[in-house]
Amino acid sequence: MAIGKVAIVGLGLIGSSIARAVQERLPFASVSGHDASAAVRDQARELGLCDGIADDPAVAVADADLVILAVPVGRMAEAAAAMAPGLKVDAIISDVGSSKAGVADALAKALPHHIVIPAHPVAGTENSGPAAGFSTLFEGRWCILTPGVDAPVDAVAALSGFWEALGAKVETMDAGHHDMVLAVTSHLPHLIAYTIVGTASELEEVTESEVIKYSAGGFRDFTRIAASDPVMWRDVFLANRDAVLATLQRFNEDLTVLQQAIRRGDADKLEDWFTRTRAIRRSIIAEGQDDPAPDFGRRH
Amino acid sequence: MAIGKVAIVGLGLIGSSIARAVQERLPFASVSGHDASAAVRDQARELGLCDGIADDPAVAVADADLVILAVPVGRMAEAAAAMAPGLKVDAIISDVGSSKAGVADALAKALPHHIVIPAHPVAGTENSGPAAGFSTLFEGRWCILTPGVDAPVDAVAALSGFWEALGAKVETMDAGHHDMVLAVTSHLPHLIAYTIVGTASELEEVTESEVIKYSAGGFRDFTRIAASDPVMWRDVFLANRDAVLATLQRFNEDLTVLQQAIRRGDADKLEDWFTRTRAIRRSIIAEGQDDPAPDFGRRH
Repeated sequence: MAIGKVAIVGLGLIGSSIARAVQERLPFASVSGHDASAAVRDQARELGLCDGIADDPAVAVADADLVILAVPVGRMAEAAAAMAPGLKVDAIISDVGSSKAGVADALAKALPHHIVIPAHPVAGTENSGPAAGFSTLFEGRWCILTPGVDAPVDAVAALSGFWEALGAKVETMDAGHHDMVLAVTSHLPHLIAYTIVGTASELEEVTESEVIKYSAGGFRDFTRIAASDPVMWRDVFLANRDAVLATLQRFNEDLTVLQQAIRRGDADKLEDWFTRTRAIRRSIIAEGQDDPAPDFGRRH
Repeated sequence: MAIGKVAIVGLGLIGSSIARAVQERLPFASVSGHDASAAVRDQARELGLCDGIADDPAVAVADADLVILAVPVGRMAEAAAAMAPGLKVDAIISDVGSSKAGVADALAKALPHHIVIPAHPVAGTENSGPAAGFSTLFEGRWCILTPGVDAPVDAVAALSGFWEALGAKVETMDAGHHDMVLAVTSHLPHLIAYTIVGTASELEEVTESEVIKYSAGGFRDFTRIAASDPVMWRDVFLANRDAVLATLQRFNEDLTVLQQAIRRGDADKLEDWFTRTRAIRRSIIAEGQDDPAPDFGRRH
């Protein structure tokens, strides 16, 4: 299956990055776009993000071989219904949502006669909107596909090839397992970061100005992901509630154990724990999933 | 008070960075060094970190106008006692420990007849050891001095001037307040990061290999500070126990509130919270305390 035309619905950080990557890396493909916000569509036109930006999603997806929904996971059903009248009968419909089981259900219900293959490129920055995207965002990052058991093999291969052309590495797994894996590697970290940044900004004993001044002691690392898009993340937690709450319970258990070790002055337990966690970072760098430079390569 | 000779006891990340910064920015000062580890002393000699490295701490500090203890906070008393016989009577003794009230007590007890001015440069990376240091580590970062009420004004001014010469901005505060501020901006973030990295690596449902592969979803941000020196951090939590436990309780309250919002599907509460936390990062960047580039400026 050849992908000659790609349509992107939702032109925020991820959608605009896909558009830029297609323009740069797939010169023989055309790319059309739509966003529910007129202001975002105007901005996308000014940025020249696609070959064409349509006001009507059904027009944007007309003739597209691949349609990618890049909207918050809570808006997938609505976005799918709005574009449905324009879809080619054999178009591949995919998405970029951070939770997959709920999205798979919503898309299957909204588009019962189409080929739906949910996907999740594990990449991003803390910035939002069409101007935040860049063509190399997916380079060396993983894109997880969660095709249903009845997904056509050639369509899955075409979608894999598309993401590989954008520089990503592709993995396939069950939607439920995806949601558990991402609860750990992405959703829980965001929840924790959002929590601590809120906590720090509301203490009576320490002013917000002090928190900001002395943030280089570690706090600033958390503020990056706590600056991520609020609507996107609200939807992720609601969509992946069970897996998030399950991993949160495990986190709470471990935090209670360390809290007790601090209260009791159990030096060995603390040192053991802190020694074990060092190894994980080395593996992440060895796998090419983070910058080997100290301090993420921040300028000093 | 002129500082013509600086002695550094402890040649890890911070001590070696001070040595390099003195060599680069204070060409008329000499700098001597000592480390309790013979291997570290050898490495420091190979790196040319100081004008001289002494095997005996009392020899290293002889004639020094300023002595900086850059050892884990649990080892301050021992390090102070070991060098005491070599100290000039009017030397300024300082340190770089991440908690201050306990260190102030330990140094006052170990060196009752000397000028002790505790200090804390709020800077660092996840790397440890003499080779990890670099001369620009303190540039634009804050160094907090916590002089006791009887500290000579000219000695405090001399120490301030020293840190400013190394590129730091200097603030003075009470040791107890320092420990509360740093519990929020540094110690709690490290504890949370150490916890979640441990949690993620021990789940049955998700393999460690999956955690590493998909870490770009947010988890990898936490692994950086969870790769920090285990002994240093063990000592920080033991030394600043009360403030850490107090801020941890506040964090736990907030986490419980967000957990309940997720369980109940309270979309508005989640979105409100996530919107507020965005502003903090903008302030940190505006204050020059983090890199304005997306994703900390990581290479993409």
